[in-house]
Amino acid sequence: MDRTAGIIVIGNEILSGKVVDTNSPFLARELRSLGVTLLRILTIPDDVETIAAAVREFHGRFDVVFTSGGVGPTHDDVTMEGVARGLGRRVVRHPAIEGRLREYLKDKVNAARLKMAEVPEGSELIVDARLGFPTVQCENVYILPGIPEILEQKFAALRERFAASPYFLRVVYTRESEGSIAEHLHATLAAFPDLLLGSYPKMADPEYAVKLTLESKDREYVERALEHLLALLPSGAVVRTE
Amino acid sequence: MDRTAGIIVIGNEILSGKVVDTNSPFLARELRSLGVTLLRILTIPDDVETIAAAVREFHGRFDVVFTSGGVGPTHDDVTMEGVARGLGRRVVRHPAIEGRLREYLKDKVNAARLKMAEVPEGSELIVDARLGFPTVQCENVYILPGIPEILEQKFAALRERFAASPYFLRVVYTRESEGSIAEHLHATLAAFPDLLLGSYPKMADPEYAVKLTLESKDREYVERALEHLLALLPSGAVVRTE
Repeated sequence: MDRTAGIIVIGNEILSGKVVDTNSPFLARELRSLGVTLLRILTIPDDVETIAAAVREFHGRFDVVFTSGGVGPTHDDVTMEGVARGLGRRVVRHPAIEGRLREYLKDKVNAARLKMAEVPEGSELIVDARLGFPTVQCENVYILPGIPEILEQKFAALRERFAASPYFLRVVYTRESEGSIAEHLHATLAAFPDLLLGSYPKMADPEYAVKLTLESKDREYVERALEHLLALLPSGAVVRTE
Repeated sequence: MDRTAGIIVIGNEILSGKVVDTNSPFLARELRSLGVTLLRILTIPDDVETIAAAVREFHGRFDVVFTSGGVGPTHDDVTMEGVARGLGRRVVRHPAIEGRLREYLKDKVNAARLKMAEVPEGSELIVDARLGFPTVQCENVYILPGIPEILEQKFAALRERFAASPYFLRVVYTRESEGSIAEHLHATLAAFPDLLLGSYPKMADPEYAVKLTLESKDREYVERALEHLLALLPSGAVVRTE
């Protein structure tokens, strides 16, 4: 089964250059290893209407949507409201989360902290022994936190839900420049139109000039395409394959 | 003068988790230091129609648009075509770039390499002594390469075009949790509605629990807001300010 995904990164701190987003690279690697095809990463400000518009679009366009960030107790944590609006739902206080918060926080409960019990109406909670706090899912949208350690922990508990058929990858490192091998890449794609073929030049690398990646969900197809390409490349062009 | 910006990162290698995008964090920091307000970062596949749709949207929505990636000589380098289509233009071979390529490459010129002379019709070339190759600009879209070293060099040559009024930033490191100071943040925003106020919890940091950022293009306004907030925070809450 093939599945597509989109990631919405929510946070002024990313856009203003104060924090480097490590969550979307983490999710990109995880999704790839699961065989899920990631088609968009969108970084937007902590703004309810902007979040709603992004969720509305991604919800309809991709099989699975992840949001990252904006789920804490402060004024700039407006993701729940944005997701709710994007899915045409109200925000409600979830009794199970509220119960957990009251039990955990005891006399430190206040309005700001109870905000963390507010979710889009109709959300499901993903409760897992590995998690201190449940993950909120609403339709195909999984709402993840911005703090990398917690996001990674939450994704680990979700991971198996998304297992799809994996991609098979072969890599060719070549000492030729892109300009001199482009025709062979075209010829390979003409013979193997479903091949995912990437060409990545590296500046000033003593080992190779261009890394070529060949991918497909059909292992046999990748192997045949690799053989085809290697036969076209000039002798001595290949440093090594992986 | 206030200016907004959007970045379109083009590359399957980012979405498939093979390469971590360092270009958009670099541009985010640069734009912030120039006083330009970055409002979107969108990462998309090497697909002409997807690029065209993103360019069409960003072109109309932001003052300046940067694309990164997809400008080499191989089959997956479709950015020029995508930008052209997004702006309703044809792709044409630019005589000045073609001349440079022929001069530089001599007998190594081939069809793939000459593809690098193709640009959206009506593009301007930004030629600078610091650049080996001109930067292509079409309307408000600046087309930058994916290789970080070259992108950074090209941005350095563009930098002064985007100088706007700078942001002024003050930072407060506090040992209180977000939940216990949220009310003071709300009160500060109520008194200073134009303040850009960020709240960033840090996991397991021995020094502080939450970093607060206060920003505005009006230095005086930030200072008064900071004073207001510091007066509200409980004594002993502040580790230090910057």
